[in-house]
Amino acid sequence: MTAPSPRAVTISAIAAEAGVSAPTVSRVLNGRGDVAPATRERIEQLLRTHGYQRRGARQGERIGLLDLVFNDLDSPWAVEIIRGVEDAAHASGTGTVVSAIHRRASSTRQWLANIRSRASDGAILVTTDLDSPLHAELRELHVPAVVIDPAGVPGLDVPTIGATNWAGGLSATEHLIGLGHRRIGFVAGRPELWCSRARLDGYRAGLETAGLAVEAELIAPGEFDYESGFRAAERLLVLDEPPTAVFAASDQMALGVHEALRRRGLRAPEEVSVVGFDDLPEARWSSPPLTTVRQPMAEMGRLAVRTVQRLVRGEAIESPRVELATELVVRDSTGPPAR
Amino acid sequence: MTAPSPRAVTISAIAAEAGVSAPTVSRVLNGRGDVAPATRERIEQLLRTHGYQRRGARQGERIGLLDLVFNDLDSPWAVEIIRGVEDAAHASGTGTVVSAIHRRASSTRQWLANIRSRASDGAILVTTDLDSPLHAELRELHVPAVVIDPAGVPGLDVPTIGATNWAGGLSATEHLIGLGHRRIGFVAGRPELWCSRARLDGYRAGLETAGLAVEAELIAPGEFDYESGFRAAERLLVLDEPPTAVFAASDQMALGVHEALRRRGLRAPEEVSVVGFDDLPEARWSSPPLTTVRQPMAEMGRLAVRTVQRLVRGEAIESPRVELATELVVRDSTGPPAR
Repeated sequence: MTAPSPRAVTISAIAAEAGVSAPTVSRVLNGRGDVAPATRERIEQLLRTHGYQRRGARQGERIGLLDLVFNDLDSPWAVEIIRGVEDAAHASGTGTVVSAIHRRASSTRQWLANIRSRASDGAILVTTDLDSPLHAELRELHVPAVVIDPAGVPGLDVPTIGATNWAGGLSATEHLIGLGHRRIGFVAGRPELWCSRARLDGYRAGLETAGLAVEAELIAPGEFDYESGFRAAERLLVLDEPPTAVFAASDQMALGVHEALRRRGLRAPEEVSVVGFDDLPEARWSSPPLTTVRQPMAEMGRLAVRTVQRLVRGEAIESPRVELATELVVRDSTGPPAR
Repeated sequence: MTAPSPRAVTISAIAAEAGVSAPTVSRVLNGRGDVAPATRERIEQLLRTHGYQRRGARQGERIGLLDLVFNDLDSPWAVEIIRGVEDAAHASGTGTVVSAIHRRASSTRQWLANIRSRASDGAILVTTDLDSPLHAELRELHVPAVVIDPAGVPGLDVPTIGATNWAGGLSATEHLIGLGHRRIGFVAGRPELWCSRARLDGYRAGLETAGLAVEAELIAPGEFDYESGFRAAERLLVLDEPPTAVFAASDQMALGVHEALRRRGLRAPEEVSVVGFDDLPEARWSSPPLTTVRQPMAEMGRLAVRTVQRLVRGEAIESPRVELATELVVRDSTGPPAR
């Protein structure tokens, strides 16, 4: 048997020879614990036989770059994540290459060509689908990856970092109930995203724990953006018995709710209380300043850097799935119900 | 004379030998027209003699990276600039390395060490002081640089890209005068920044052209942030004859003005009209949506990429100083005066 060059051996080839899937090989490479010991041993044996070089083992070749990839940079919390990632990366002498792939195949291919040519040490992907072809390609390129705020249900072979969306939804709802509200509207986020579901379930849990019914007419669809928050509020405010408080699953939607109130001559919190979710900078600058559930975006970015750097060094990580705590931030948009 | 390696020759050495300043050598390297022909020829002769390699001439070595450097990433329009830069860079297969130097010497040194080790093709600096040691260091490293929104008066040897701040200040003021306002308050930006001065002068020009007096009591100091806008409005609203309209030199300050109005039970635009400057996303999401002067941040970012790429290729640029047009965006925060 000829000794292949380290670069020539792909994860797929190792997987085929071991009789396992490529993700299983990645799990071993990514330091994950959920691989049967015998399988792990067989895979590690093959990795050694073929002289497979973990990226992190090639210390001398490390280039000092991490890639940070967004679907879109007009995501309102992009800058918060960039800030956290840049902060942690910069401190360790690592540069942060920021890209947007716009969910377009051509753009994704371009980015993969770029990451191949510049040989980044690792990648942090924001809100990407975990079954995206991107992940398979990154595995083939031996680029360790971490996902922030995964779009789908995690549990695959890529470490993910999220926020406690369910607990956040619960705390916002409990806050409103504590103020005396009994009819609480909910503006949902994009239904295909996992975080939207978790926030809605937190809202339901809050109502049910307090012995309140979950009423379908009080749950309005939304898309996380300002316009959909505005439309949802228009819908909730014309109900026969409108809500005295609205919990929107994003700050942008909550700001749309503010505007719908203003257009009807209603004020927050005097007539209707409003709670958001995210704690974007604009939550503080809103009038009135918005009560909201803080997602620790910058901290999530910093943790993503530390996690990917551990993978680069070939170290094991404790958990493939981490959720950082959300926190209710009470400002001026919530108060007791008027009636 | 021994032939020095291309890397060994510094701009300072060339400048000393030519009997000119280092900035003059940079002007020649940066394709600037404002160097006397004889001086240019002497410098180009020395560059050839010493085998000085323009960065852009080392085509084969180009790494496909641009550095984008902010003082702080919590600048509200950071993400707009990142979006424009990433868009133009990505399209040309170039990665964008985003850094924040926090105006700290240690952080600047770290960044310079990083850019040295990763050999970026060029750098785009946002709102840096043009006399910062950063620029001298970048010259020594042969890294072409472009400045977006220069902090000081440009005209030095680094190309700059700004917005028409004076014309923007004028258009906001004319808009308010056109609505019938005669007492117009102004909330100024950070006094040490050139753009603040230009916006103030645009405001003055608008008043004077309309035959209105510029009254010192109507000009309140600000720092571009929400809190200073709030404080400035508090000051303007307690004048014996308060303004019927307030033009704030940034959107964040305008949002602070909104909040000061709300706390006094006043509404925009019914009681007081408000105009901002920037057109950040939050201007649209404010309640009421904010009339403001749009700075084309993403376009400025795209132009910065194209400019630095021309420098990298060793091409001349038409003008070292470019200002892109601002545009008045009329939304719901302005209307005719109540009295």
